[in-house]
Amino acid sequence: MKAAYFDGKKITIEQNYPEPNSAEALVRVNLAGICGTDLEIMDGYMNYRGVLGHEFVGTVEKSENSKLIGKRVVGEINVGCGVCSSCRNKMSRHCPNRTVLGILKRNGAFAEFVSLPKQNLHVLPDSISDEQAVFVEPLAAALEIKEQVTLVPQWNVAVVGDGRLAQLISRVLKLSCNNITCFGRHQNKLQSLDKLGIKTKIGIESLDEFTFDLVVEATGNNSGFSDTMKLVKPRGIVILKSTIASKENLDLTPTVINEITLIGSRCGLFKPAIDALATGMIAVDDMIDSTFPLEKFHEAIIHAKKSDTLKVFLKP
Amino acid sequence: MKAAYFDGKKITIEQNYPEPNSAEALVRVNLAGICGTDLEIMDGYMNYRGVLGHEFVGTVEKSENSKLIGKRVVGEINVGCGVCSSCRNKMSRHCPNRTVLGILKRNGAFAEFVSLPKQNLHVLPDSISDEQAVFVEPLAAALEIKEQVTLVPQWNVAVVGDGRLAQLISRVLKLSCNNITCFGRHQNKLQSLDKLGIKTKIGIESLDEFTFDLVVEATGNNSGFSDTMKLVKPRGIVILKSTIASKENLDLTPTVINEITLIGSRCGLFKPAIDALATGMIAVDDMIDSTFPLEKFHEAIIHAKKSDTLKVFLKP
Repeated sequence: MKAAYFDGKKITIEQNYPEPNSAEALVRVNLAGICGTDLEIMDGYMNYRGVLGHEFVGTVEKSENSKLIGKRVVGEINVGCGVCSSCRNKMSRHCPNRTVLGILKRNGAFAEFVSLPKQNLHVLPDSISDEQAVFVEPLAAALEIKEQVTLVPQWNVAVVGDGRLAQLISRVLKLSCNNITCFGRHQNKLQSLDKLGIKTKIGIESLDEFTFDLVVEATGNNSGFSDTMKLVKPRGIVILKSTIASKENLDLTPTVINEITLIGSRCGLFKPAIDALATGMIAVDDMIDSTFPLEKFHEAIIHAKKSDTLKVFLKP
Repeated sequence: MKAAYFDGKKITIEQNYPEPNSAEALVRVNLAGICGTDLEIMDGYMNYRGVLGHEFVGTVEKSENSKLIGKRVVGEINVGCGVCSSCRNKMSRHCPNRTVLGILKRNGAFAEFVSLPKQNLHVLPDSISDEQAVFVEPLAAALEIKEQVTLVPQWNVAVVGDGRLAQLISRVLKLSCNNITCFGRHQNKLQSLDKLGIKTKIGIESLDEFTFDLVVEATGNNSGFSDTMKLVKPRGIVILKSTIASKENLDLTPTVINEITLIGSRCGLFKPAIDALATGMIAVDDMIDSTFPLEKFHEAIIHAKKSDTLKVFLKP
């Protein structure tokens, strides 16, 4: 099959990559999405080798659950061992022996086929388009914040970053909090949030400093943390969303002095994300950028890396 | 008056330093304690200039509240502006315009006299000795953890560090949680915790990794954070207690991946600490090391910096 294989240094579009051959469900990939994490992996994050890609929608071709065959599905990306205490407590996302689609010891979705355990798959309603379905995984990651923090409507909330994940997070937080400001760098990206009643700003002014009850760091780069710490109030909450290949000189002393709570936040459950898209509670169509055939992977990546690009899709 | 003055580079024992002259209460210092923060300030932390020292017990000589005169007191170290929203919400510890005794724009207690607003002072019961009273400030900082986290008795809890603050924190946590392990480096310091039913370990074994629900980082140095992140479970809680002059290459990505909650924790309220000492709920006598006259400040500091030293006092 066709697949975008990463050998630790470069991506090759293989034409005869072995098809997945396991007891898991076999899914033909209809459409996959390029995520900031894919770009970080290509910079060395997770030290991953294999087929990239973890955002996808596809059609089940083989499964021991015959009801799944022919169904259009998305798939949760973490696969736990099934026996450890994390897995027994419905936290296979934190299984120490987990594999993660296209990120950790499991071939991903930038390929004609992908395999996952049947319990990872979610059948999609017809009301969700293929393009929208690719947003289920990152939207679940955005909704994870609601699982971790009890949001207070009156809170003054900031989102730092204006990329794909920051956009979804801003939309999710707007459902619960009245007062959201997104701090970004790109006017064209911020425009779509303006329309949703989310305040947008390029750059932090002194009157913004230490005024936010909750700040979400979703820049995907190292500069985000210091900006975030400028915005959050003493005793405020920071959600950390960026997973970054590089380390930096970070100073945790302001966290101690101002008694900030920093909460790491990663993947979320798919069901609430599917519901949010199906009901139209979260709209994503204005975040759709462009679709490239898998063979044009390198062009797609160049486009996805541009600062003003929103969601880029690959079609195997 | 005598005072240990820090000019940003070195400490001088001044014999004729001006006495505090303000509308605040004037307190003759009976005894002061050397804290890790004092050592960090001498390394450049907070960029402080002035008289050092923030742990003390003394006797009120002047106050507009005549009932305080002649009383033995300890003093909360943060002085807020009194008008900002933090101060109005009983959070003067987080007032953006605060001064902090011996740490930020306010002369400290390594001197014959110190001044503080009368509302910062707490009269001590006779059952608390001067040496014990010096522990009120760091014990309040240890007890602050209980204000920030609802401790669960069944939690597996680790304290990283075996210094003065780590010792107090271990004792405080033992009141609420059954299963405490203190990870230290010095057998002689850990011994006193063994006697209190707290498990102690030198070095982290692989079986300790990712097994603790709550980990308190109280080493006062940069190595503590990576050890802490080795110990905490996915979705666990880390309390950050170290305020450190230097920055380091820190990687927050494991915090995101494992969805860790990091909570910065600084000063606490004095009342619960006084009560804990007065009732004997927390014992500190085995942490008393030695007392130096203020004139022998430099010898006291050399002694306090030794890895096996517990609480060192200065007598003006």
